[in-house]
Amino acid sequence: MTDHTFYMDLALQNAKAMKGQTDPNPLVGSVIVNDNQIVGIGTHLKAGEPHAEIHAIRMAGEKAKGGTIYVTLEPCSHHGRTGPCAVAIKEAGIKKVVIATLDPNPVVSGNGVKILEEAGIEVTIGVREEEARKMNEVFNKFIVEKKPFITLKAGTTLDGKIATHTLDSKWITTAASRQDVHQLRNENMAILVGVNTVIEDDPELTARIPNGRNPIRIILDSSLRIPLDSKVVTDKLADTWIFTSQKADGEKEKALLSQGVKIYRTNGSSRVDVKEVVATLGEQLISSVLIEGGGSVHASFLENHLIDKAVLYFAPKLIGGKNAPTFLEGTGFAKMADAVELTDTDIIKIGQDFKFIGYPRYEKGDM
Amino acid sequence: MTDHTFYMDLALQNAKAMKGQTDPNPLVGSVIVNDNQIVGIGTHLKAGEPHAEIHAIRMAGEKAKGGTIYVTLEPCSHHGRTGPCAVAIKEAGIKKVVIATLDPNPVVSGNGVKILEEAGIEVTIGVREEEARKMNEVFNKFIVEKKPFITLKAGTTLDGKIATHTLDSKWITTAASRQDVHQLRNENMAILVGVNTVIEDDPELTARIPNGRNPIRIILDSSLRIPLDSKVVTDKLADTWIFTSQKADGEKEKALLSQGVKIYRTNGSSRVDVKEVVATLGEQLISSVLIEGGGSVHASFLENHLIDKAVLYFAPKLIGGKNAPTFLEGTGFAKMADAVELTDTDIIKIGQDFKFIGYPRYEKGDM
Amino acid sequence: MTDHTFYMDLALQNAKAMKGQTDPNPLVGSVIVNDNQIVGIGTHLKAGEPHAEIHAIRMAGEKAKGGTIYVTLEPCSHHGRTGPCAVAIKEAGIKKVVIATLDPNPVVSGNGVKILEEAGIEVTIGVREEEARKMNEVFNKFIVEKKPFITLKAGTTLDGKIATHTLDSKWITTAASRQDVHQLRNENMAILVGVNTVIEDDPELTARIPNGRNPIRIILDSSLRIPLDSKVVTDKLADTWIFTSQKADGEKEKALLSQGVKIYRTNGSSRVDVKEVVATLGEQLISSVLIEGGGSVHASFLENHLIDKAVLYFAPKLIGGKNAPTFLEGTGFAKMADAVELTDTDIIKIGQDFKFIGYPRYEKGDM
Amino acid sequence: MTDHTFYMDLALQNAKAMKGQTDPNPLVGSVIVNDNQIVGIGTHLKAGEPHAEIHAIRMAGEKAKGGTIYVTLEPCSHHGRTGPCAVAIKEAGIKKVVIATLDPNPVVSGNGVKILEEAGIEVTIGVREEEARKMNEVFNKFIVEKKPFITLKAGTTLDGKIATHTLDSKWITTAASRQDVHQLRNENMAILVGVNTVIEDDPELTARIPNGRNPIRIILDSSLRIPLDSKVVTDKLADTWIFTSQKADGEKEKALLSQGVKIYRTNGSSRVDVKEVVATLGEQLISSVLIEGGGSVHASFLENHLIDKAVLYFAPKLIGGKNAPTFLEGTGFAKMADAVELTDTDIIKIGQDFKFIGYPRYEKGDM
Ligand SMILES: [Zn+2]
Ligand SMILES: [Zn+2]
Ligand SMILES: [Zn+2]
Ligand SMILES: [Zn+2]
Repeated sequence: MTDHTFYMDLALQNAKAMKGQTDPNPLVGSVIVNDNQIVGIGTHLKAGEPHAEIHAIRMAGEKAKGGTIYVTLEPCSHHGRTGPCAVAIKEAGIKKVVIATLDPNPVVSGNGVKILEEAGIEVTIGVREEEARKMNEVFNKFIVEKKPFITLKAGTTLDGKIATHTLDSKWITTAASRQDVHQLRNENMAILVGVNTVIEDDPELTARIPNGRNPIRIILDSSLRIPLDSKVVTDKLADTWIFTSQKADGEKEKALLSQGVKIYRTNGSSRVDVKEVVATLGEQLISSVLIEGGGSVHASFLENHLIDKAVLYFAPKLIGGKNAPTFLEGTGFAKMADAVELTDTDIIKIGQDFKFIGYPRYEKGDM
Repeated sequence: MTDHTFYMDLALQNAKAMKGQTDPNPLVGSVIVNDNQIVGIGTHLKAGEPHAEIHAIRMAGEKAKGGTIYVTLEPCSHHGRTGPCAVAIKEAGIKKVVIATLDPNPVVSGNGVKILEEAGIEVTIGVREEEARKMNEVFNKFIVEKKPFITLKAGTTLDGKIATHTLDSKWITTAASRQDVHQLRNENMAILVGVNTVIEDDPELTARIPNGRNPIRIILDSSLRIPLDSKVVTDKLADTWIFTSQKADGEKEKALLSQGVKIYRTNGSSRVDVKEVVATLGEQLISSVLIEGGGSVHASFLENHLIDKAVLYFAPKLIGGKNAPTFLEGTGFAKMADAVELTDTDIIKIGQDFKFIGYPRYEKGDM
Repeated sequence: MTDHTFYMDLALQNAKAMKGQTDPNPLVGSVIVNDNQIVGIGTHLKAGEPHAEIHAIRMAGEKAKGGTIYVTLEPCSHHGRTGPCAVAIKEAGIKKVVIATLDPNPVVSGNGVKILEEAGIEVTIGVREEEARKMNEVFNKFIVEKKPFITLKAGTTLDGKIATHTLDSKWITTAASRQDVHQLRNENMAILVGVNTVIEDDPELTARIPNGRNPIRIILDSSLRIPLDSKVVTDKLADTWIFTSQKADGEKEKALLSQGVKIYRTNGSSRVDVKEVVATLGEQLISSVLIEGGGSVHASFLENHLIDKAVLYFAPKLIGGKNAPTFLEGTGFAKMADAVELTDTDIIKIGQDFKFIGYPRYEKGDM
Repeated sequence: MTDHTFYMDLALQNAKAMKGQTDPNPLVGSVIVNDNQIVGIGTHLKAGEPHAEIHAIRMAGEKAKGGTIYVTLEPCSHHGRTGPCAVAIKEAGIKKVVIATLDPNPVVSGNGVKILEEAGIEVTIGVREEEARKMNEVFNKFIVEKKPFITLKAGTTLDGKIATHTLDSKWITTAASRQDVHQLRNENMAILVGVNTVIEDDPELTARIPNGRNPIRIILDSSLRIPLDSKVVTDKLADTWIFTSQKADGEKEKALLSQGVKIYRTNGSSRVDVKEVVATLGEQLISSVLIEGGGSVHASFLENHLIDKAVLYFAPKLIGGKNAPTFLEGTGFAKMADAVELTDTDIIKIGQDFKFIGYPRYEKGDM
């Protein structure tokens, strides 16, 4: 297997290992081969730093000349502190480029290939394409739509409840699941909850893993009801952004601002429009958001077709209660035929719990 | 492996193949071995017919003499049209008995072994015990408690809903799951629903599989609101029993009786007590019941610790709705710490759906 | 799966459990179903005893009438102490017969089906056919060719040696492999070795497993060189048959006969023709033979295309030696292209050793 | 798993991808982490080029300072064109070093750690040690013993034959196995055969894979019987070295030298001592040798305990023949108890063939 897939797999492995540290940039890996020997490997480490191809070319040095470069994403044609990678490849004297996926951004897709081909470089596209595409599901959405990839997360009983009818919710899932959630948080740039969740649970919303990066904490709070002594306001463990409406009290806003909280006053007279929230987050270069409740916040996002992925932790428990809240409330769809179906589903056991993953499919009849 | 486990496994295989046709009797298999050769196999086929040991002894004929009999359940000491099997074993001249599990009924457990040992027959107990015990989970409860083994079944969205807020419920799960439900129905002696399910869905509640046995249909209906033209009243595909309260209208009762429906008027002045229902079913020798909704019926049974097993079919869908019914309503438990945990859980994919199986554990701290 | 395959699988399971006790008859299982309930199960236990169908019909009693019988082999049309099973099925009032495989014997194949169809019984053929055919690989050969199914067994080093150049051979394989060989012996009616193996190793050639049946011991000995005090002559643990040639000494023959050994004097003036041996064994109703060495005996059988199956135990050892004997000697084939290929191969780990199974394919270009 | 094993696994993946291109140097990978982010990756690409740590430090740049470096092998204390890596780590300001395995060379083992610890750097040893050790089985032997790691390769029938009694040998194994052999050749620095193999088969002994590196071809030929027109002499596809004895003809030697063949005249008057060959190869920095026959060459190496690994391709064929050569000839061991056992055995199916891998264990009772 010392062929295209062997080298591309190596590039993919290096790319994936950087998960969580390249936002809002994509994961990218690269390998340079010359005379049947690997002469350089590279990976994109962090936004603002050299692209994968540049690292690989630097490691290869003179040996890049005449070689073949493998890269999991189409070399860029314009951006990056280190200039267009397509040009760097050309200047390094590389004779052949093997690409997993074209740039998902329609504005620039194909431009890198064009530069390469005009320079007489042989280009092959599509090696390990599916794997490379899935690896950057977050980036692929963000770069095209300028909006974050949104993951709904819930820890629920088997009957869909996230609390009892008395609103007791500690604990539904086991420690193993909660640890997994911290990993999820680490992989997202922001975490979003409704203000009720803050009022009821006073959570930290941080990624408590050995080397976790804490996401920005985003609170939807149309009336600025958030307690001034809540942890997300006071603990300084991560940035906190509050999206509120026109009706919010100015004094409370000042108090929060003085705590270092960022306030976004949206256009709604008395409610916060989640579409506006999402658009604003995109403008702020937030490429990924994890939504953690409660049920009416989830419903707002789902009904607006804003959920890209669902991660559900089912505890093997039954709690019951007509009035116990489920993780998906709001009005709901009227017809079962209108339910949002999830595809690419998977379920795995985590400790005593079951973790479900799926991708909502909004366009019916599209498949 | 031509030893105890080999022969007991053969007895277990034959026993299990009779699933669904021996109620209210247990599944039992038997093998007789003489001079290292199998000389007879037997299995219990149907209540009222010979026990497994008798079939095996008949097949073995003269060769039973001096042999070893393997049987998945302790030979009986008294009941059965063909007399006590322990005596039949003795009279057949069998010299050794290998048993998987003792009789679960404390009143008679050990009596069969006593007869055998007093006859000088060598007895070994416990070969494949766990497997034999699980095979008869229904019978083991029924014979000890004289109450049916109750399985809760629900087809639900991921968010626990069994209908939309407009009560539309067709269809949640896929055809594959619904086919599996028909198999479940075939394995239970009775199927129980609340009258609202009949009013809303007018279901047949039959086992639509090639050679399915239709369970008795049991309806909880405190006011006899059931429509006289509902399928369970008119289609005659299986018996229908209605449990009602003292307040039920006499005329409606007569009309139902004239359709061949059986009416149980329970002690409640205006409600049907599920404990009384279960006790009555036990008296009627109903050893297994499948409960199929709706959510408040499920809740009544769960809150009374009457559910022995849960089988949940999760469709990979999200429907939402604060008022959309979940499969477990009622009041619910007040504290998350009081939730009923399920053990021995398993989850498998059926078509696009996920089938979950678990066993409620009511005694906290018991494990 | 409560359909044809469910019932046929049950019949197959019961048939297979009798492996080793039905020779020279095939393994056969049967299940009778009526009104969606199993009403009888049967299996052939031993040659000379009732066929599987008869046991199932007896267990079903009156309930056979109108039912469907599943049987892994075409019901017989003539033989058996209990008369033709096809007739017994007709007389039991069975309405449908589902068969896995037709009778492999071309002389009678289809006759059973003919009787059934002429009686207006619906017949289905081919359910689980491949599995049923493989289960009776021994019988299928024997009944057609009237010659035993022959399995070559060898325990060898990785370099094919069965002894060192000094002829030391204890032990090559581990205890686990040797235990497995005892199981193999139990499954064969006879075990065959050359006289050199007796002279060098003085083996017992018995099946040392808890309830093992000892195969008949067959020795190829053209000059009757076998020591009178060898175990196979003196221990009486199983019958011993010696195939010798015309040149064998009469006095030695008498001495052996007086020990109870059976002597077959074949036509060869000074050598024993293995084809004649095989034909004679077939006449003696020996349906299966395990050949255990040495290398020249193996070669004689292989070169005459008489090996039906090979079971090789490879010890992870290297012994070396140009003159150390391999398990396949003789002249050998002249061209590598003429090597006998084995198909349906499998290899599994047994303790430290590897057990290889394969089926020689003699007709080149046949596949 | 974003911890020690996560980072070391990434280093191991990059190290392994260089298999076949670092000889005689070991495979080594490295990762630098700072503030929970990967800031550099490196791998050793080729002997004479920078070590893995240097590449990683270069990629990390300023970010190495205060970080943790993961490296699959103890950083060197003295050798390498880029100076001691332990010193480079110190100078980069790295605060912590995590090592999979210490240097196997007893002369320098621990020296790198000593430098690091004296510089006040925290050192952790043993993360993924077993995996890192196995990855460099060739190097670990070579660096300690200054002798190549020797792999015996044979393609054989099930009965151990590598040719028929007429010496026909084409083809034993299938194309899939032969392709696998080319991969093996690519991974070894040299391939060794006896002159008879050259005379009989006139092989190329090259690695015919897309980007294969041809190993040096080594021929054992005590009398210089090698034909002057054999491919290994004339095709120039790779270097050819012949080991001969004192008795070899001087004229033939000159003819070979004029063809560019290298001649090693060993001390034996008429035979080539394999121990001397191995010592010489070690001096020539040949770290790995694949021996490909014939059977007497294999035997010489095995009897001298020089085989480190055996890779056997078994074709599912039987050829037979007392005089057909096996892949292990010579005298062989006299007692079965003296057979060389192989440990860490594995067997996998390759096309129709079975590939066996094992490691000879010469010191009995050592485990
Ligand atoms: Zn770039
Ligand atoms: Zn009984
Ligand atoms: Zn018959
Ligand atoms: Zn170094």
